Amino acid sequence: MLQFDFKKRVRYGETDQMGYLYYGNYAQYYEIGRVETMRHIGFPYIRMEEEFGVMMPVMNMQMRFLRPAKYDDLVTIRTVLQDFPTERAWFKTELYNEKGKLLNAGDIRLAFADMKTGKGCPPPQGLLDAVKTYF
Amino acid sequence: MLQFDFKKRVRYGETDQMGYLYYGNYAQYYEIGRVETMRHIGFPYIRMEEEFGVMMPVMNMQMRFLRPAKYDDLVTIRTVLQDFPTERAWFKTELYNEKGKLLNAGDIRLAFADMKTGKGCPPPQGLLDAVKTYF
Amino acid sequence: MLQFDFKKRVRYGETDQMGYLYYGNYAQYYEIGRVETMRHIGFPYIRMEEEFGVMMPVMNMQMRFLRPAKYDDLVTIRTVLQDFPTERAWFKTELYNEKGKLLNAGDIRLAFADMKTGKGCPPPQGLLDAVKTYF
Amino acid sequence: MLQFDFKKRVRYGETDQMGYLYYGNYAQYYEIGRVETMRHIGFPYIRMEEEFGVMMPVMNMQMRFLRPAKYDDLVTIRTVLQDFPTERAWFKTELYNEKGKLLNAGDIRLAFADMKTGKGCPPPQGLLDAVKTYF
Repeated sequence: MLQFDFKKRVRYGETDQMGYLYYGNYAQYYEIGRVETMRHIGFPYIRMEEEFGVMMPVMNMQMRFLRPAKYDDLVTIRTVLQDFPTERAWFKTELYNEKGKLLNAGDIRLAFADMKTGKGCPPPQGLLDAVKTYF
Repeated sequence: MLQFDFKKRVRYGETDQMGYLYYGNYAQYYEIGRVETMRHIGFPYIRMEEEFGVMMPVMNMQMRFLRPAKYDDLVTIRTVLQDFPTERAWFKTELYNEKGKLLNAGDIRLAFADMKTGKGCPPPQGLLDAVKTYF
Repeated sequence: MLQFDFKKRVRYGETDQMGYLYYGNYAQYYEIGRVETMRHIGFPYIRMEEEFGVMMPVMNMQMRFLRPAKYDDLVTIRTVLQDFPTERAWFKTELYNEKGKLLNAGDIRLAFADMKTGKGCPPPQGLLDAVKTYF
Repeated sequence: MLQFDFKKRVRYGETDQMGYLYYGNYAQYYEIGRVETMRHIGFPYIRMEEEFGVMMPVMNMQMRFLRPAKYDDLVTIRTVLQDFPTERAWFKTELYNEKGKLLNAGDIRLAFADMKTGKGCPPPQGLLDAVKTYF
């Protein structure tokens, strides 16, 4: 299993008039968690697009909102790659506040697709090499 | 059943470098669909907050991404209120492109909460009155 | 002179915890105004990119914030193309609330650039033809 | 003079289909720079709102776009408080890429306002104390 924590602060422009992190902004937190997890294992997402011409469109997403995140909170984004990626990659994301309380949890399934054709394709070898030591 | 269609155009700032509507922006489309549905039945969401002091935090959300939405597409947001709202409200949202192809579908569950205390509360009577003719 | 009004509603996700339209979101309103103005004169911005391979990067922007826009306000975006476009295009944008009060005013200067090379280029003939009847 | 550098990475959702940081997102970078500068001097912006009931609405903003910021760039946000704040505060912001090239520069003028009344007010003493050692 591959797990990585990354911290991100809730910005003013991300709040709404409830005073909370707007619910539509959580997906960006998930993405930041995935990208920083890939950077952490030595295969930044940008390499996938620039060197391999492969993008990762999202297929499914599921979120539970447990507690609000508030302005200026330093949120911990915990990203878990559940299984060794094949045609799809499953990530689980959990957001925690500074007291360690779980704010939000989600599951997300992404595909691999050729950037030129838009068609599905296998994950780049570079990603598999970077990931395999964790499984 | 209450169903309402509203059109929204995909804006430049909503696209990403894939050239698609960024996956994190769909939740805003869902919200716009809900808000315009409530306006359509004569009970705008803003009245809920301003007159009744009730807000509707999102509890759960589930999305399937079937086809990308692209820049300048005029997307139809179809919002369906599935059941008569009690402590929770279930909305189903579907997005269609101009050719009538389904792009994205989601389910979302919202609560009713007192804006001062943050505690759960029943839906305002005004909403129930506006909704009941559809069920 | 070319002037066009377009209405856009302030969405929940665009507000911040002050309860106002977040100041960072006004630039999107300006862009929507420009794009709808170009659609109105029969030369949608998407044609510029797709048919002519020309994009319009912003060079300078200046904004004055006079009154806050609030959630659910139906804002009128008034876009004025000041001069016949040559190497640059100058737009002036004004936002008004439903009472006709001026909320925000700005000036923006855009260039024309070849999408492949990123270099400056003249405006496409199709745009000049569409615009010239207004000057 | 008070000057502070803070780094922020360009996220996928912040790019547009040009492949650049969307021009409407720079204002958020400016805000992040201001907020982190205030945290650096020991007077976080959140204290201004929560302890003093004072907010800082933007009055004017001016931006020059020199070079595009791209996906995954680690941008340095240099924030300069130009003068000792009185009724207004002037910030100058510069964004640099990893090679030290200037991408964008802007000036922004903010007011101090009572959060309850919305009326202008003097800056909180706590801010003045934190700032005065720099002037």
